[in-house]
Amino acid sequence: MLNIGILGALGYTGCEIISYLTKHPKVKIVKLWDKEMINKKISSIFPEFKNILDIKIQEFNIKDLKNIDVVFLSLPHTVSLKLAPEIVGKVKLVIDLSADYRFQDAGIYEKWYGIKHEDKKNLKGAVYGLPEIMRDKIKGAQFIANPGCYPTSMILGLYPLAKEGLLKNANVIVDAKTGASGAGRKKSNDLLAKDINENIKPYKVNKHQHMPEVVHFLQNEFNVKFNLNFIPQLISLKRGIMSMIYVIFKNKPAKNLYPIYKKYYGKEQFVRLYNKGFYPELKGILNSNFCDLGYLDFLDTNTFLIISCIDNLGKGAASQAVQNMNVALGLKESMSLL
Amino acid sequence: MLNIGILGALGYTGCEIISYLTKHPKVKIVKLWDKEMINKKISSIFPEFKNILDIKIQEFNIKDLKNIDVVFLSLPHTVSLKLAPEIVGKVKLVIDLSADYRFQDAGIYEKWYGIKHEDKKNLKGAVYGLPEIMRDKIKGAQFIANPGCYPTSMILGLYPLAKEGLLKNANVIVDAKTGASGAGRKKSNDLLAKDINENIKPYKVNKHQHMPEVVHFLQNEFNVKFNLNFIPQLISLKRGIMSMIYVIFKNKPAKNLYPIYKKYYGKEQFVRLYNKGFYPELKGILNSNFCDLGYLDFLDTNTFLIISCIDNLGKGAASQAVQNMNVALGLKESMSLL
Amino acid sequence: MLNIGILGALGYTGCEIISYLTKHPKVKIVKLWDKEMINKKISSIFPEFKNILDIKIQEFNIKDLKNIDVVFLSLPHTVSLKLAPEIVGKVKLVIDLSADYRFQDAGIYEKWYGIKHEDKKNLKGAVYGLPEIMRDKIKGAQFIANPGCYPTSMILGLYPLAKEGLLKNANVIVDAKTGASGAGRKKSNDLLAKDINENIKPYKVNKHQHMPEVVHFLQNEFNVKFNLNFIPQLISLKRGIMSMIYVIFKNKPAKNLYPIYKKYYGKEQFVRLYNKGFYPELKGILNSNFCDLGYLDFLDTNTFLIISCIDNLGKGAASQAVQNMNVALGLKESMSLL
Amino acid sequence: MLNIGILGALGYTGCEIISYLTKHPKVKIVKLWDKEMINKKISSIFPEFKNILDIKIQEFNIKDLKNIDVVFLSLPHTVSLKLAPEIVGKVKLVIDLSADYRFQDAGIYEKWYGIKHEDKKNLKGAVYGLPEIMRDKIKGAQFIANPGCYPTSMILGLYPLAKEGLLKNANVIVDAKTGASGAGRKKSNDLLAKDINENIKPYKVNKHQHMPEVVHFLQNEFNVKFNLNFIPQLISLKRGIMSMIYVIFKNKPAKNLYPIYKKYYGKEQFVRLYNKGFYPELKGILNSNFCDLGYLDFLDTNTFLIISCIDNLGKGAASQAVQNMNVALGLKESMSLL
Repeated sequence: MLNIGILGALGYTGCEIISYLTKHPKVKIVKLWDKEMINKKISSIFPEFKNILDIKIQEFNIKDLKNIDVVFLSLPHTVSLKLAPEIVGKVKLVIDLSADYRFQDAGIYEKWYGIKHEDKKNLKGAVYGLPEIMRDKIKGAQFIANPGCYPTSMILGLYPLAKEGLLKNANVIVDAKTGASGAGRKKSNDLLAKDINENIKPYKVNKHQHMPEVVHFLQNEFNVKFNLNFIPQLISLKRGIMSMIYVIFKNKPAKNLYPIYKKYYGKEQFVRLYNKGFYPELKGILNSNFCDLGYLDFLDTNTFLIISCIDNLGKGAASQAVQNMNVALGLKESMSLL
Repeated sequence: MLNIGILGALGYTGCEIISYLTKHPKVKIVKLWDKEMINKKISSIFPEFKNILDIKIQEFNIKDLKNIDVVFLSLPHTVSLKLAPEIVGKVKLVIDLSADYRFQDAGIYEKWYGIKHEDKKNLKGAVYGLPEIMRDKIKGAQFIANPGCYPTSMILGLYPLAKEGLLKNANVIVDAKTGASGAGRKKSNDLLAKDINENIKPYKVNKHQHMPEVVHFLQNEFNVKFNLNFIPQLISLKRGIMSMIYVIFKNKPAKNLYPIYKKYYGKEQFVRLYNKGFYPELKGILNSNFCDLGYLDFLDTNTFLIISCIDNLGKGAASQAVQNMNVALGLKESMSLL
Repeated sequence: MLNIGILGALGYTGCEIISYLTKHPKVKIVKLWDKEMINKKISSIFPEFKNILDIKIQEFNIKDLKNIDVVFLSLPHTVSLKLAPEIVGKVKLVIDLSADYRFQDAGIYEKWYGIKHEDKKNLKGAVYGLPEIMRDKIKGAQFIANPGCYPTSMILGLYPLAKEGLLKNANVIVDAKTGASGAGRKKSNDLLAKDINENIKPYKVNKHQHMPEVVHFLQNEFNVKFNLNFIPQLISLKRGIMSMIYVIFKNKPAKNLYPIYKKYYGKEQFVRLYNKGFYPELKGILNSNFCDLGYLDFLDTNTFLIISCIDNLGKGAASQAVQNMNVALGLKESMSLL
Repeated sequence: MLNIGILGALGYTGCEIISYLTKHPKVKIVKLWDKEMINKKISSIFPEFKNILDIKIQEFNIKDLKNIDVVFLSLPHTVSLKLAPEIVGKVKLVIDLSADYRFQDAGIYEKWYGIKHEDKKNLKGAVYGLPEIMRDKIKGAQFIANPGCYPTSMILGLYPLAKEGLLKNANVIVDAKTGASGAGRKKSNDLLAKDINENIKPYKVNKHQHMPEVVHFLQNEFNVKFNLNFIPQLISLKRGIMSMIYVIFKNKPAKNLYPIYKKYYGKEQFVRLYNKGFYPELKGILNSNFCDLGYLDFLDTNTFLIISCIDNLGKGAASQAVQNMNVALGLKESMSLL
């Protein structure tokens, strides 16, 4: 059994990790750290864990790491940056769910997150944890930067095009919808049920910090330049992301592109392909590690549509972190995920 | 035209008052006071007011009262208590939507709200603003304590029984459901859409501060003693209250009780009666000043059921405040409300 | 007072028309016709009308038209086509909310709706009821084809570009979200709350019958050819449409386009403009006749974004029908709508 | 491996059974029968099953039973009655999720369901499948009548009182809320998202067919007479039931009752107890087999409150059916349920 510690256990993502890991046959959660609710049982805070996990919340202490094999950092951006240097290397595996180690080019991170990156050493060693693309590097990794939710939906949608060199110079428009959990469990007037329900609220159009994550990763890995427009919208959902990805090619590829998607994802367990006649729906992927990709055909002569949907708390965060753990430690990749 | 000022304009209730008054033919909103967003136009904060009311939020200044006829205090409990003494008497009419002046017996207020009541003078002059019961006292009043939302639904349901002396020694159980706006627009983890939607959350069972308001008012006005149990529940709604009122009589009244309801409410515009065969539904009263009462019959030999529903932001707050204003100032009672 | 009859009173749109007209000072609803619930009071079917409109549902009879001034046809597509010929000309004004008279070119209608158009005479006389564009023709009209909901949101967003000749050869992508009421009150597994809530469901991508309505109208009126892609999505809303309209220009216009929107809509009461810094939200237009347009700027060098939102049952149907009635009969345009 | 067949696979409950069984290590779903969508893959109808269960829907044929060990009848009431006689005895175990075999006294069934019960033989052999109460009889049973959803929540709440003889002559009021899935996946105007969301709709007050199920079972098993009032309400939820059970004792029991609940449920895995200070919430039991019971104390001198919540599609239907299967066949009771 692997001993697990979760830092930031009370957030939405922390709780999701607990949900997945309490069903995992090879691990045991031994520490839940947070800054609030110290000494309260997790099951008394969140009733869903009653009789399932009854351990107490504790303040993080570096000495706790002694018996721990895997640490999940489920922390706000910029907080991981302060704690990771103390933890990485002291346990078998650290998985950071913040954005702090996702950018190999620290300058981009610094520009978008407004903070100096003081831990270049661990940044260099961090693997971007998108198993369908980075599986070989994740195997045996000790430090994984878990991707953002929107970026997971976008990168998985664009990867086959990028890899095949088709994305070059394309104009990409991503019209993406997400729900109330996207921003985490934080006190905010913007996330009150009265204001979320029966509303659609566009926000941060072409200013969202997940844009550079997509551009940087695809450019870095596949040496491809393209133009990205990102139009996120908050809608009345608890969870889930549906990204409509419109790729406007400079020149229309001669061939049907569906086979390319089949080539890259045909054997993947967690990426499911729909052809034009069937549409993926959000409810197909909620509470799961699936990324469903659909349409995958041209709307008109040079506009190609990819419908990409994931659960922002699943494949976009917690279940992908567990998938990364499974891959990194040589466990069966789908353990606790199917 | 009457000039209106609203203190606490940015809260849910403040905004609802604006909505009703911008349709009112005899008033003009001239001041919106709040502590945040100073100098921002209300229409830039809440898009629904664009082209309808474009005035700016200002900090409250006692000198502003000069040109004002009516002030609505849409403030948190205990805050009204500090401001009302400065305002009452300086304008034609003050309507306070907090609980601060609802208890003629200040001791009960002090016990439940945990603060000393330092304004006994205005308390004495305050009229409890439930027009269907207190209309005669509201006419010409200068200071009105607008009732709480749950209390409005309960008192209107119980009033005919209390008035007829039937409530004496009865055991009353109120199973009440409300939505996310009940607690106001405040930052709170408990009101996040992710946690409200698809949930039912009982809270403050027999500990809610609206219990003594009901008991105190009915006892005070009709000299009746009864036992009240109150079981409030937060459900996935933006707004609305449905109270299931179970009255367990010591001795079953000999007569059918529906005619008693007809007697008291038959000529009321905003209280609508349903007999046993038709159930009121929440959607019938949303965004309105109606209180719908239904079933009004015995479940078994001595248990009588009253289904009572209102919009907590309408008849339970803003539209009732406007109704009170209309009555107090001699305007047509339904003005801007139908 | 104008006497009103509503055919198809029990549908979502019929009920909305009732809501608006019961607040209208110059009209009286005298007939509600439908095929079901004959002889039941509308107020016993829908509790919101209790004490507001208590007349009975009747079967339509041509003789009823005698005392009627205005008839609203709130009927399914292809049903209006059979009834309109009997009614048009017998009353002052007929407003048809179906698609049956929206296409001056009957061939397009026949292709998309799969039925032969047998009433060319009335088709020729029908005015497309979009007051912001067709006001002059609506004045005095006797027969108005009320626009579709999606088309209203799209055409109002594109009109200034079309009128100025800028839309020529552009590639337009409309990513549009709507709610459960879009399909009307019909029995359908697809519209059950369990399947709508917490879901996003793309449907009829580039196959929706509202596409040709937009293309046909703009081409017909402004002689402009452009390419339209339409990607509708059903989300967990009761009502409302938000269309993200991406206009990809062949050549980027030299000038800022916001002033063009100002030019056409600056004096319109029901079209409200937001510049780039403020986003329209759905909740700003729910239960209203407003169309809010926002962003109105370039995302990148040649992609222009228009955010367009309306209430599909308001400006997209019932309130626009009332606006049309007001314009056609020379009443104040905003009567009962503000 | 046990081979499973599901009759009525396309209903809400059928789909839930599939969800639980595809995670069950000892069974294999080999047949999905329904009347619609013949020859379509379940995964093409419901995207959540893609890559998980891709078998086709077939029409039921008695010959299919040859290779089947367990049949789940997920059929509407009165339909099971026609099919069960053909199936029971031909396979190891039949679990019927309809009401057709829940009443040992066929007369009560006939009165409430309006149909003659023609299969007394199997009725006699049917075990009421509430494992926490009937575990000994379920072990080795060949035919199980799975309890109704509301009855599960009510009976589990009342059982300790009934068993201890405390319920005698009590007056019980159950104020119960459920969501849109309670009525099954059927075409119905009442279950459209536009009409469910933001609404509360009381229905069948003291006329619901689940009332006699509770009374009959408790009376039959524990020889106890009490008075039941049942007030069901449809609220804006996809799933879940919260029953507020008010027990008004003729004479208040001398003792604290919480220990009685501890006595009967202390070792149960799927019944979780909360004391007065902590409230169960619906979200604690969604998508699970748990029944959470809370408050368990007196409101006033003789009114005792039990808050009981379950997932109507889980413990109220599908997961309880799986629990029954596990118990009947000697598998670990929690298999695929935790």
